[in-house]
Amino acid sequence: MAGSSYGTVFRITTWGESHGKALGVVIDGCPAGLELEESHIQRYLDRRRPGVSAISTPRRENDAVEILSGVFEGRTTGTPILLMIRNTSQISGDYSEIAACYRPGHADYTFDQKYGFRDYRGGGRSSGRETAGRVAAGAVACRILEQLGVNVCAYTRSIGPVEADMNRFDRAAILSTPTAMPDRTADEAAVRYLEEIKKATDSVGGCMECMIDGMPAGIGDPVFEKLDANLAKAAMSIGAVKAVEIGDGCLVSSRRGSENNDGFCVSDGRILKSSNHAGGILGGISDGDRIVIRAHVKPTPSIYLTQRTVNTDGQETDINIKGRHDPVIVPRAVVVLECMTALTVLDAMMINMSARMDSLIDFYRK
Amino acid sequence: MAGSSYGTVFRITTWGESHGKALGVVIDGCPAGLELEESHIQRYLDRRRPGVSAISTPRRENDAVEILSGVFEGRTTGTPILLMIRNTSQISGDYSEIAACYRPGHADYTFDQKYGFRDYRGGGRSSGRETAGRVAAGAVACRILEQLGVNVCAYTRSIGPVEADMNRFDRAAILSTPTAMPDRTADEAAVRYLEEIKKATDSVGGCMECMIDGMPAGIGDPVFEKLDANLAKAAMSIGAVKAVEIGDGCLVSSRRGSENNDGFCVSDGRILKSSNHAGGILGGISDGDRIVIRAHVKPTPSIYLTQRTVNTDGQETDINIKGRHDPVIVPRAVVVLECMTALTVLDAMMINMSARMDSLIDFYRK
Amino acid sequence: MAGSSYGTVFRITTWGESHGKALGVVIDGCPAGLELEESHIQRYLDRRRPGVSAISTPRRENDAVEILSGVFEGRTTGTPILLMIRNTSQISGDYSEIAACYRPGHADYTFDQKYGFRDYRGGGRSSGRETAGRVAAGAVACRILEQLGVNVCAYTRSIGPVEADMNRFDRAAILSTPTAMPDRTADEAAVRYLEEIKKATDSVGGCMECMIDGMPAGIGDPVFEKLDANLAKAAMSIGAVKAVEIGDGCLVSSRRGSENNDGFCVSDGRILKSSNHAGGILGGISDGDRIVIRAHVKPTPSIYLTQRTVNTDGQETDINIKGRHDPVIVPRAVVVLECMTALTVLDAMMINMSARMDSLIDFYRK
Amino acid sequence: MAGSSYGTVFRITTWGESHGKALGVVIDGCPAGLELEESHIQRYLDRRRPGVSAISTPRRENDAVEILSGVFEGRTTGTPILLMIRNTSQISGDYSEIAACYRPGHADYTFDQKYGFRDYRGGGRSSGRETAGRVAAGAVACRILEQLGVNVCAYTRSIGPVEADMNRFDRAAILSTPTAMPDRTADEAAVRYLEEIKKATDSVGGCMECMIDGMPAGIGDPVFEKLDANLAKAAMSIGAVKAVEIGDGCLVSSRRGSENNDGFCVSDGRILKSSNHAGGILGGISDGDRIVIRAHVKPTPSIYLTQRTVNTDGQETDINIKGRHDPVIVPRAVVVLECMTALTVLDAMMINMSARMDSLIDFYRK
Repeated sequence: MAGSSYGTVFRITTWGESHGKALGVVIDGCPAGLELEESHIQRYLDRRRPGVSAISTPRRENDAVEILSGVFEGRTTGTPILLMIRNTSQISGDYSEIAACYRPGHADYTFDQKYGFRDYRGGGRSSGRETAGRVAAGAVACRILEQLGVNVCAYTRSIGPVEADMNRFDRAAILSTPTAMPDRTADEAAVRYLEEIKKATDSVGGCMECMIDGMPAGIGDPVFEKLDANLAKAAMSIGAVKAVEIGDGCLVSSRRGSENNDGFCVSDGRILKSSNHAGGILGGISDGDRIVIRAHVKPTPSIYLTQRTVNTDGQETDINIKGRHDPVIVPRAVVVLECMTALTVLDAMMINMSARMDSLIDFYRK
Repeated sequence: MAGSSYGTVFRITTWGESHGKALGVVIDGCPAGLELEESHIQRYLDRRRPGVSAISTPRRENDAVEILSGVFEGRTTGTPILLMIRNTSQISGDYSEIAACYRPGHADYTFDQKYGFRDYRGGGRSSGRETAGRVAAGAVACRILEQLGVNVCAYTRSIGPVEADMNRFDRAAILSTPTAMPDRTADEAAVRYLEEIKKATDSVGGCMECMIDGMPAGIGDPVFEKLDANLAKAAMSIGAVKAVEIGDGCLVSSRRGSENNDGFCVSDGRILKSSNHAGGILGGISDGDRIVIRAHVKPTPSIYLTQRTVNTDGQETDINIKGRHDPVIVPRAVVVLECMTALTVLDAMMINMSARMDSLIDFYRK
Repeated sequence: MAGSSYGTVFRITTWGESHGKALGVVIDGCPAGLELEESHIQRYLDRRRPGVSAISTPRRENDAVEILSGVFEGRTTGTPILLMIRNTSQISGDYSEIAACYRPGHADYTFDQKYGFRDYRGGGRSSGRETAGRVAAGAVACRILEQLGVNVCAYTRSIGPVEADMNRFDRAAILSTPTAMPDRTADEAAVRYLEEIKKATDSVGGCMECMIDGMPAGIGDPVFEKLDANLAKAAMSIGAVKAVEIGDGCLVSSRRGSENNDGFCVSDGRILKSSNHAGGILGGISDGDRIVIRAHVKPTPSIYLTQRTVNTDGQETDINIKGRHDPVIVPRAVVVLECMTALTVLDAMMINMSARMDSLIDFYRK
Repeated sequence: MAGSSYGTVFRITTWGESHGKALGVVIDGCPAGLELEESHIQRYLDRRRPGVSAISTPRRENDAVEILSGVFEGRTTGTPILLMIRNTSQISGDYSEIAACYRPGHADYTFDQKYGFRDYRGGGRSSGRETAGRVAAGAVACRILEQLGVNVCAYTRSIGPVEADMNRFDRAAILSTPTAMPDRTADEAAVRYLEEIKKATDSVGGCMECMIDGMPAGIGDPVFEKLDANLAKAAMSIGAVKAVEIGDGCLVSSRRGSENNDGFCVSDGRILKSSNHAGGILGGISDGDRIVIRAHVKPTPSIYLTQRTVNTDGQETDINIKGRHDPVIVPRAVVVLECMTALTVLDAMMINMSARMDSLIDFYRK
C-alpha cells in the first residue's frame, strides 16, 4: 500500500535508492518450475543501460543482477525470488544543491512535503534508477508469457517532432537503434534532432508504444480491474509519463460510432474483428486481437539551463543542475513499459484461471 | 480481485446488473461520524439520469437510493454502508438479438469468452448502469473531501469537434447545461451538433475533464501507487474511456524541458509553482497545486445503423440495435469521473495518515 | 481493510446491523457457471435460526435470503452476488440500558472507544446476527467445494462439561439434535445441563469442531498464508471464540517428537500418513489427510444476573440485561465455523491454481 | 498472496532459503523519520541464535543483518527497507536422504505436492531459518511501538511438563535463561528435563506466551479483521504452532458466563475491567487492558530415532535424520512470536488512524 508493490498473484516489491548500497526486487508468486538464470534477466537490464551514442549520458552503469533466492537447480521453486543489483558506479558527488533546492519537474519538493525529508543523493527513491527492479521482475514475467504464447514488445514511437513510420516497422531495429525506434529512417532523424537539443542544453519529450500479441480472449476483469485500466496504471506509474492511450486513444473523442466500432467477422473458423480501433480490449477484457498501448513521456526535467526555483528554506533562488542526464527519457524507458505491461498481463492471466466452474472442476477432478 | 472492488482504506464493492432486481454498492472503511442521508447521495445519482433534452435517451429512470446499513441516527458508524437502487424502469424487452449476437464495440463477445455465457439483458454487468454504484459511493467520498477542504469538479471538455472554451469557464453551467459543459456557448453548439448526429442515426465521442482544488501537498505514494497512476486507472475503468491525460498530457511528448518544467516560486510565504504543466503531481505525489485529469471517451457503440457482426454460433450476420441510446456518453459520464476521482483521492489521503513517525506519535501520545 | 471483507479470490463483504433494515453479503469472485438458487443458501441460514427447544431463545427469526444480483437463468455469472436478508422480526424495543451502559463481555465499550459512538440496537454490527452474511456466502462456497469433492462438516464437540464421544459419531445427529452434537447420548446430557444453566439464569461455553474431507494435497501457501494460519483467523474471527486448535492442538506442547510425528506410509499406491496428529496440514500446506480444527467459545456474555459495570458517563452502575438470549452460543455457531472454514479452503484452492508453470501451460496452451 | 507477505500498511515480504546465498525481508510502509541502525535489529536476531547451552544445537550461526535501502542519515525515509542476512555457516552437506525421502512432521511431502519439486537443502523455504526475516522486520515494528508507548514481550510458558510459575515472573530472566522462561526455577527444571530428552535422542513441545502492555483501547476492526483473529493468524503462521489462545483461551469453553464476564469499573477516572479473562480484546477490538496470547508448539520433528517414511519414488523406507537439531523449538521461537505480535499490532494501529471523521479533520485541517 505504501507504493512499492505491484500485482496481485504475481506480486513484486521493488526496493532501493539511486545511490544506496544496492537496489532490486522481490517477486512473490512466481510459478514453480520455470527455468531461470541471471542471463535471462541481464538481457533486459542491459536495455535500460545508457548507450555510447551521442544521445545518452556518458555515465557508465554496469547493472549486474544477482539471484539471491527462489531458484534451485536452475528452476524457480515457487517461493520469493530476490534479485539484487549492487550500486557500483554511483560515486556520490556533490549533492549540496539538490539537497538544498527543489529541482523543477522533480519530486524533491513533494517527497519533502510527504516524508519531512528525503534521500537527496541522485534523487533517492524517486530516481529513474528505481525502474531497474521493475525491469528485473518484468524480465521474468516476459519469460513466462513467452511460454504461454504471449509476446510483449515496446518501442519508441516518437521523439519530439520525429515520429516512427509504422509502415517501415522493423522489429530488429528496436534493439539495435540508439532511439529504440522500429524505423531506421526515423531513428536517424531523431538522433540528429537530439544532437541539436543537446547543443541547446535542453531536453525533449517523446512517445512510446507497446504491442501485445498472442493474447487469449477473456483476460481482465469487469468494472475496476479492467485490463486497460490496469495497463494505464502500469504505464502511468513510470516516472515522467503524463498520458496513456489504448488502441486509437485520444482520437476516439472526435470520432463517430460508425467509424469507431470494430465489426466482428469470421476467418478460418475463428471470430476476429475487421478493424482494431479498440486496441484489443472490449469492456476491459481482451478480445484476442493485438493490444496496443501508448505512453507520452515528458522531457527530462534535468536540463543545463539556469532555472528559477525555491530552496528548502523557502527562498527563491537560481538552480544550475550538474551531472549527466539523457536529453530524452524514452529510449531507456521503452523496456520499462514493456516490463510493466508484461507484469500486468501475466497477473491478469493468472487471476483468470479461477473465473469458471468448469476450470476448477477440470483442475481438481481430472 | 474479481474486479468489482475499488480502494484500499475507503473500499467499495459495486454489484448488480442493468436489468436485475437491484444494484448498488457497499462501502467498507467510511470514517465514523459523517452526517449522511439519502438526499446527499441522490443529488449525485440524479446527475447521471438521462435528461429531457434532445440529446439524451427518452428512457425514464428514477434511481432512488436507499441506505440499508452503516448509518445510525444520521451519522456513519464506521461499519459497511450498503446503498441500494431498485431497478424499476428496466422493463425486460426483447433481447433475442443481443443474446444471439456480439454487438460491435460492446463486451458481449469478451464476457462470453471469459465466463462461458452472460446476462444479456441490457448488457448485464457490462452496462453503463453499473456506474450507479460508483456514483453512490463517490457521493459519500465527495462529502468527506468537502469537509477536508478538497473540491472535485468534472465537466465535459468537448463533444465531437465542439470544445468548451476554458476562458468562458462557468461552474454553474456544468450542472445546468444538457452537455455538462462549463461554457454555455459551446454547449449550444454541441447540442446542435448532437441533433445532426441523431438524425444520422450515429453517435459521437467526447472528452471530459476533472479538476481537484484544495489538495494538500504530499498525497500519493512513490513508484506503483503514484497518485496519477491511480487516477489514470480510475478514469480508464469507466467503460468507453480510451485515453487519460494528467496536466498537459499528450502535449508533453513534443515539448522541450525548458518549456515544460514548472519553476517553483514563493507567494505570501507559500511555495507554489509558477506554471502547472504537471497538473499538480510530481513524482506521483501531489504538489499542492490544482490537479487536472482528462479522459477521452469513445462514441456510444450502440448505433441505429446496420452493422456487420458474428452470432454466438460463429456465423457472420447483420445486426440492427434497437432500444434507446444516448448519441454521446460524456454528459452522463462526467459525474462518474468526478466520483472515481474523489474515491481515489480520498483513499490516498487516508493512506497518507501513517506516512510519518511524527504523525503516529501525535495521534497516539497526544 | 476496515474489516468486513474476507478472502482474496473468492472475496466476500458482509454488511448490516442487528436491527437495521436488512443485512447480507456481496460475493465477488464466484466462478461463473455454478447452479445456484435461494434454497441452496436458505438451508444453511436455517441452521443458525433459533430452535424451539428449551435450550434456545424464544425469538422468532425468519431469515429469508434474496439473491439480488450475479445469478442469471439459474447460474452464477462470475459477477458480484448480492445476498440480502430483510430484518423483519427485530422489533426495536427499549435499548436505553444498552445505550447508556457497557455490557460486560460485549463490544459496547470498545466500539465507543474506536468510533466515538455506536449503533446500540441489539448490538448493532457487533451482534452475532452479523454472521448471517457469512453463512449465506459460506453456503455458496460449500456448494462449490462439493463439486470439487471436498466436504466440510462442523459440529458441537462439547458444552460446558459435557463432551461428545467421537466413537459414537453420527453425522445425521448434527443436523437433528438441538445441540448440533454428533452423539445423541451426549446431546441429551447437554440438554439437561443447559436446563440447569437456564434455571440459574447463567450461561456456559463450549467447543466446536470442523472436519474437512476430500482435501487434495498441496493447498495453502508457505510462511504467512499457511492454510492453518488462515483457518485460525477464520475461526477466531467468529465472535466469542477465544482459542483455536489444529489437529491435536494444545496437546502437542507436552508431547515428545517420537509420539507426535506422523510417519508416512503407502496404501494402494497412495502416500498416506499412518496417524494424523498434524490434522492434515504440514508446513501450512494440506497433506491430503482429513483436516481438523477446533474452536473454543466463551459463555454467552448476556446473562440475567445483575452485573457490575460502567455507564457512558464513566460512572459505575449495575446492569440487568433483558431480552432473549441463548444460554450457549455453540449450537448456532457451528454452521458459522463450517462456513468460515469452507470460505478459507475454497479461496486457498482457487489461489493454488497458478502455483506451477505446468498448470499455466496446460491452461493456456492446451 | 503467494504467502511471503504480511501486513497491510506496515507490509513485509520475507525471502530466502535456509541454505541459499542470503535471506531477509523488505519492509514497505515504515513511517519516515524513525532512527534506525543495524544494531537495533541485530539485538532481536541474536535472540533466535542457537546458544551454547546443552539445550540447543551446536550450530554456529552468525546472522549479521545489513540495511541495504530505506534508511538515510540514520533515519527511515518512508521507502522500502531491505534487510539482508548472508548465509555464511550453512555448509551444504549431504542432503541425499532429505532429497529422496519425506521427513515425518516436515513439509517435504507437501512442498513436493504443491510445487512439483523443492529446494531440499536444510528444508529450503520451509526451514525455521525463514523466521530470521520476520524477526528483522519485527525488530523495527517493536522500535516504533516503543515510541508509541506499547510494549510487546514474549517468553516460554512451558516446556514439556515443566511450566513457568507466573507468580515468580521475572522479565530479566527471559533474555538471560537458556529456555527464555521468565521464572529461573522453572528454567532450571526445564534444562534438566531437556537433558533427559536429548539423551533419549527425542524432542519435546512447549508453550510460549506474549503480553502486550500500554495498548490503547479501540484498535482492531470488527468482523474479519478482529485484532485477536489477526494475532491468531500471526502466531499460527509460525511453523510448528498447532494451537493459539487469547486471554483465558481453551478454559472458557467449560466456564459459566457469571465466571467469565469481566465487569467494568472506574479507577482514577479511567474505565478499566475488574478482571481480564478476555485477554484485552472485546469484539475484536482492544479494550485498553493487557493483551495475552499463547501458542502451543509441537516437538521438533527432526529426531535421531529411526522413523518409518516414504521416499520420493513412493516406496516405504526407514529414515535416520542427521544434522544438528534443537530438542525443543520454543526458546528460539519466542522472539518470533514477539515479532509477529508486534507486526500485527502496529499494522492495526496504523490502519486505525482513519477510523473517524474527527481524526481526518484534525489531520488535514489543523
